[in-house]
Amino acid sequence: MAESNALEGLTQALRKLPGVGAKSAARMAFHLLQHDKPGALQIARAMEHAVNSIKHCTLCNTLTEQEVCATCANLQRDRSKLCVVETPADQAALERTRAYRGLYFVLMGKLSPLDGIGPHDIGLQILFDRVVPKDACGEPLAPASREVQEVILATNFTAEGEATAHVIAQALKSRGVQVTRLARGVPVGSELEYVDLGTIAHALIDRR
Amino acid sequence: MAESNALEGLTQALRKLPGVGAKSAARMAFHLLQHDKPGALQIARAMEHAVNSIKHCTLCNTLTEQEVCATCANLQRDRSKLCVVETPADQAALERTRAYRGLYFVLMGKLSPLDGIGPHDIGLQILFDRVVPKDACGEPLAPASREVQEVILATNFTAEGEATAHVIAQALKSRGVQVTRLARGVPVGSELEYVDLGTIAHALIDRR
Repeated sequence: MAESNALEGLTQALRKLPGVGAKSAARMAFHLLQHDKPGALQIARAMEHAVNSIKHCTLCNTLTEQEVCATCANLQRDRSKLCVVETPADQAALERTRAYRGLYFVLMGKLSPLDGIGPHDIGLQILFDRVVPKDACGEPLAPASREVQEVILATNFTAEGEATAHVIAQALKSRGVQVTRLARGVPVGSELEYVDLGTIAHALIDRR
Repeated sequence: MAESNALEGLTQALRKLPGVGAKSAARMAFHLLQHDKPGALQIARAMEHAVNSIKHCTLCNTLTEQEVCATCANLQRDRSKLCVVETPADQAALERTRAYRGLYFVLMGKLSPLDGIGPHDIGLQILFDRVVPKDACGEPLAPASREVQEVILATNFTAEGEATAHVIAQALKSRGVQVTRLARGVPVGSELEYVDLGTIAHALIDRR
């Protein structure tokens, strides 16, 4: 290969993308430079624009260009319910169902002691301050006068997601907050024969 | 998901990358903005720099920042041999073998009538002019006085690659150029039981 520093630099940079190794990065670089230079410039500009303009919503912690994101600023939404999710992608999945009209809190991660991610890294304190605000004297508001009446835990049903939900539930329940968790059960459209045992067991326990 | 135009724009732009769909693009955008903003800026700058500085080598047609790429400019290389490859990645694979010290010509594609890619789209005329230069009177140089004495066809062993090799071989042989093709045969380290029939048949015919 011709020694091209610009090409080598681009290939190295593309490896910063999650899931992209040396071969994919080289293929992407060649493709863009050979067939889609306008596309390459579009990516570069979109990347720069996003990095410079996107910050965290001061209320729900998601990524947004505003101080407060569009969902939090929407006065049509039920402000007494707060759904806790791990990522904006999870939030988007819930939004697509059109079954939830409350607000969100986006952790932007999950508790993962093995990766060194503790409560401070995923903004749990911001969540607690949001749900149980303090009054003028620094005392927590009484449950009846709080805006958020129910916290719905919608972290993933993985080991880390469950642990995160458990920690949040314990902390909020001790402060007198009503905490619920997404139901576990058999996925819609699936056949029992192919559903794993843990799921069936949970579906039995949570039957209604 | 919070309606963020910058985020949406970045996700759309990332879909220009080959092999990246909507979900991967969203995952890449979230990852970069949440965990690796410096990486995102590095990609943006490398992309812009590459688009603005990379052009085609005037001799071998590969991607380079110079008029003539480092390989073509290297006086240590055997200028009587010219190896024709489809892409810079193929050239890199040949270079890694350290078994070839001649020069290259990079087609930057292959003949593919179904995709509307004909001889003019892959610089075949540049290749022919390079191998059979014309003298001052516009007549092709006699074989003995040409610089390139052998053209080695190293296009891929796919339908399009073989067709491309065939077209080049026909055109160059009619101009009195010695044309060879990479040997087909059983890959090193493989067991005959698992090698496809076409490969074994070729290995039998080309036995030595």
